[in-house]
Amino acid sequence: MTHGRFSLNQATIKYASLAEALQVAVDTGYESIGLWREPVQEVGLDKAVELVTDSGLRVSSLCRGGFFTGQPGPVRDAALDDNRRALDEARRLGTDTLVLVAGGLPEGDRDLAGARERVRDAIGELADDARAAGVRLAIEPLHPMYAADRAVINTLGQALDIAEQFPAEVAGVVVDTFHIWWDPQVLEQIARAGAGGRITSYQVCDWITPLPADNLLSRGIVGDGHIDFTPITRAVVAAGYTGDIETEVFHADVWARPYAEVAAEVADRYHRLIEPDL
Amino acid sequence: MTHGRFSLNQATIKYASLAEALQVAVDTGYESIGLWREPVQEVGLDKAVELVTDSGLRVSSLCRGGFFTGQPGPVRDAALDDNRRALDEARRLGTDTLVLVAGGLPEGDRDLAGARERVRDAIGELADDARAAGVRLAIEPLHPMYAADRAVINTLGQALDIAEQFPAEVAGVVVDTFHIWWDPQVLEQIARAGAGGRITSYQVCDWITPLPADNLLSRGIVGDGHIDFTPITRAVVAAGYTGDIETEVFHADVWARPYAEVAAEVADRYHRLIEPDL
Repeated sequence: MTHGRFSLNQATIKYASLAEALQVAVDTGYESIGLWREPVQEVGLDKAVELVTDSGLRVSSLCRGGFFTGQPGPVRDAALDDNRRALDEARRLGTDTLVLVAGGLPEGDRDLAGARERVRDAIGELADDARAAGVRLAIEPLHPMYAADRAVINTLGQALDIAEQFPAEVAGVVVDTFHIWWDPQVLEQIARAGAGGRITSYQVCDWITPLPADNLLSRGIVGDGHIDFTPITRAVVAAGYTGDIETEVFHADVWARPYAEVAAEVADRYHRLIEPDL
Repeated sequence: MTHGRFSLNQATIKYASLAEALQVAVDTGYESIGLWREPVQEVGLDKAVELVTDSGLRVSSLCRGGFFTGQPGPVRDAALDDNRRALDEARRLGTDTLVLVAGGLPEGDRDLAGARERVRDAIGELADDARAAGVRLAIEPLHPMYAADRAVINTLGQALDIAEQFPAEVAGVVVDTFHIWWDPQVLEQIARAGAGGRITSYQVCDWITPLPADNLLSRGIVGDGHIDFTPITRAVVAAGYTGDIETEVFHADVWARPYAEVAAEVADRYHRLIEPDL
């Protein structure tokens, strides 16, 4: 059985090398994979491109750029340069989607509105590079519990407010159920994103309780938590999104399991809980 | 030195009995206190009313009603009855504000939209009781990280969408910095709340990182975290709110400290970080 549009984000099997992740994905029936920069850089970009090409898999996205909320100066300049490298890596790996995590408040800085303005400015500074690379800057709103220390962009509406200031081929948004399922405006904002051709990625994982002690590792496999995926998936479909659907599960217990077992289980959940609504 | 509009919510010194909490508040210069039902019930309502009256303190609010997201049936009926008792307790204790925590998803239920509708319906069923008691139902939006297991009302806008379906003397909202500071719409929603006479309580506490392992006990003393209180306080003032300003800190380390020391410290932070913007 193959999994069609379903893509295994390699962070779901975090401890696998790039070669192992590609092999697991192929062996368990995937046609698509979401990559992270660190395992790519471990083998070097040339080798990574070769491994990906040989695998025959599509690359649904590259994670991640962003982290550009710093004040103007060397730190911010370095972040923008790193995003330019990430755009080039995405292009060479054959994906049109670079996922952006905005970054949190700089140390000691409480100006949330200012940090959010710098995110918009950074997208503006990267827009020409993105267009040249043929890669879209995919702004991912992160759950509000990460607003201080990880990402100051926290709702789909807010991500769209930024993305819509740039052409659709340059800037879009990530619809990730874990981050946005609670939002009273989620369905209308998905429709808005679709109408503007802004949905660059649909990602599915679940919200589990009690929230694990490390809130960065608190994501559940689809079906293990509280999210009703049906209305969200149907809204994404109705909005015209036809791309790959990734799952990206950060959880210590999931990472400790055999890679192929995890890859098979998340695919099973996809076929049962997501695919029927496509 | 007295603290004017600043009110000590007794959950900040959780392990104090009602008598102890009142004494600490008086001794450390407070004129107002926010009460919880459990310590009131420990001594009985008649005795609690006597203690409060003798203390000379105002009661800024009673915590808490709500938890009425259950499906129609005995559990929901019991919750509504309990809320009616809470309204009566609030009236007798001399406060016009009953703080409501909506409640989470019922066990095994993933219908978030349905649970939210039942919150609105519950407010409707309690409206006449609230009017008769002269006590306002103060809908408190809780941070989205509590959407599954504690409160399905997660933004000020959403709380107002419900409150505005009822007269302003019956239903209002709580503006609590911890829960709403991240919201890109927070300032405009505070203005909306003020325009409709809907702000029933302004509560201040801080967002600290890393988020403590128990996310229910993750609140910081004003000044210890990432929130810039100035724009929020100024918006609350501009919105016409002239009532008490509570602090309510849930944190194991704070609870372990001597009550009077905590009461004095949070008041000091109020005078330095909140009062200048009033």
